[in-house]
Amino acid sequence: MSQEFETSLGEHELADLAVGCTVLAGGGGGDPRVGLMMAINAVQHHGPVSVIQLDDVADSDTVFAAGMVGAPTVMMEKIANGGEGRVIQDTLQARLGTRISAMMPMEMGGINGVLPVAWAVNAGLPLVDGDLMGRAFPELQMCTPHLHDIPSRPSVLVDERSQAITFDTAGNVWLERLMRNTVSVLGGCASAGLYPMSGAVARGPVIRGTVSTAVRIGRAIRTAGASPFEALDSEAEVYPLITGKVIDVERHTAGGFVRGSAVIEGTETDSGRLVRVEFQNENLVALEDGEPIATVPDIITLLDRHTAHGIVTEHIRYGQRVVLSVFRGPTQWRSEAGLRVVGPRAFGYDVEFKPVEERHAPTH
Amino acid sequence: MSQEFETSLGEHELADLAVGCTVLAGGGGGDPRVGLMMAINAVQHHGPVSVIQLDDVADSDTVFAAGMVGAPTVMMEKIANGGEGRVIQDTLQARLGTRISAMMPMEMGGINGVLPVAWAVNAGLPLVDGDLMGRAFPELQMCTPHLHDIPSRPSVLVDERSQAITFDTAGNVWLERLMRNTVSVLGGCASAGLYPMSGAVARGPVIRGTVSTAVRIGRAIRTAGASPFEALDSEAEVYPLITGKVIDVERHTAGGFVRGSAVIEGTETDSGRLVRVEFQNENLVALEDGEPIATVPDIITLLDRHTAHGIVTEHIRYGQRVVLSVFRGPTQWRSEAGLRVVGPRAFGYDVEFKPVEERHAPTH
Repeated sequence: MSQEFETSLGEHELADLAVGCTVLAGGGGGDPRVGLMMAINAVQHHGPVSVIQLDDVADSDTVFAAGMVGAPTVMMEKIANGGEGRVIQDTLQARLGTRISAMMPMEMGGINGVLPVAWAVNAGLPLVDGDLMGRAFPELQMCTPHLHDIPSRPSVLVDERSQAITFDTAGNVWLERLMRNTVSVLGGCASAGLYPMSGAVARGPVIRGTVSTAVRIGRAIRTAGASPFEALDSEAEVYPLITGKVIDVERHTAGGFVRGSAVIEGTETDSGRLVRVEFQNENLVALEDGEPIATVPDIITLLDRHTAHGIVTEHIRYGQRVVLSVFRGPTQWRSEAGLRVVGPRAFGYDVEFKPVEERHAPTH
Repeated sequence: MSQEFETSLGEHELADLAVGCTVLAGGGGGDPRVGLMMAINAVQHHGPVSVIQLDDVADSDTVFAAGMVGAPTVMMEKIANGGEGRVIQDTLQARLGTRISAMMPMEMGGINGVLPVAWAVNAGLPLVDGDLMGRAFPELQMCTPHLHDIPSRPSVLVDERSQAITFDTAGNVWLERLMRNTVSVLGGCASAGLYPMSGAVARGPVIRGTVSTAVRIGRAIRTAGASPFEALDSEAEVYPLITGKVIDVERHTAGGFVRGSAVIEGTETDSGRLVRVEFQNENLVALEDGEPIATVPDIITLLDRHTAHGIVTEHIRYGQRVVLSVFRGPTQWRSEAGLRVVGPRAFGYDVEFKPVEERHAPTH
């Protein structure tokens, strides 16, 4: 696997990023399409976005993370206006009395891996090559600063009417509760600025290089011609669980989340097998014969059998041909403290987390 | 009626204020008892609160209004900590870059006529003799600045955990919607700072002298011995509608409001009559034989037959002996623009507003 990092993202890189984000999202984060269109529009007007490494951020500089919060089904329709990043930046700067020097995606998945590029470009800020989840997750305390006891304070919520709500809460779980509810009142989704941190404070939690990783994975898949899965294998450690057809999907949008399940019937060498995936925006567990065969925080994604693009949970449909694939979850989340926040028990599943590499073999 | 204004409020004046607030609240604003205890506690520690007239506020000074937002039934149990006024002041000063020189009650009714005294004392601010409703109303856009196209911006919500949420909304109706919902998440009530204004801007909307009016009415009733109604008559223009007994009351708390109705069966010279009162925190309409006999924005209050204290809607009980009384609503609300915001149609009643003095005779 190549080690190089992106230094700027133009239209081609953004298309790669979007595909990579569907793979890494674990089914969540929303369809990147609207975010990609906005990001392409922004770089067409203002030129490519500059990408910097976290180590390029000075100790005393301030950075923040951003993303849309709400139901992915709504994000596809109630579209951001592109200026929210700037409103967030101005609000944070006024509150903190410091200058914001860069921003990063809150999560590396779905629309939220791509849309922050539009915000960064429109605000004139560089994008930090990293994020706070290393994948996508449904709730706001499921960010690495929370593991380091760093509060998201203040947090800012902005909608497409440029209304702004600033939160100073007693911890990140209160923030999730309050912001989630406010998002409902605003119509189901809104744009959030979270976890403003100095460069010094950011060094611990930020998961580095994830923008570049997503671009690299997306580029491999997009340029692979007839063998996208081979290309994916060359860029990532993939654990395929089952190749099959979606024969059932149940999904409902409530309280800001898309919840439900899908059943995959095995085909080819997996004939006779049935695997069920349960999700809350993101895929949480994969079950076979009633037993978990993969869980969060490992990244569980339905990949399209032909293109190897990831399928977001709101797009799962009867008849889709998929390869249910797992990637190792980010290291910070696999710790004991991390599992308390994003392990299966944190989502209500009474099962122990077992790393995917202890259950299955990778493709290579 | 005497014309003098209060210049400070100590324990006696606060007890008067609380009673006056029950009369002027129109059934809403919540039971002042908890607010009175907090205000008394505050003045015991810090001395009487200084009361100033609006004209004592310089054009360039900044003032704000404050009150608890939520269901009165919850306000009696989920008690403020007394320091919310200071948190609001600090948040507004930081946001606006100006010095706050005074604060006032948001409404002159119920707990919200008294509790702001505790906040003012604990924050070291004088209290302006005035408010933004001239009575109590259930929703946040039902404040006089809204009639003058003055947005409540920013607005601040603080809970007893000292969490603070700041709102910059696209207008006051959006603020009501967002703040009301947030109050639900916080447990059903919280403390709000609203309509920060310069002295110059405040001159139009603020309803002047209402703190003094409430104190004067309360003092008259409390010192009246056996004839509180005569004492009330000497201080206010009262329109009694019916003397009777509460024979039915239906009430439920939902969405931050206490909604319901009560039926009064006439006694003494009113025998044979039945009047129904419908409320949403505040009493909205009084009906007899299916026809309205009084409506918002006139102040409709159930007064205790023996003490002349006002009864808040959450304390209406079967068997209570009451005099259903009406006072002229504040002039600003009786205008065409005012009626669009707080007239009967604004609450869903398809009736024209008719001033109480055109339907009934006052007691003197």
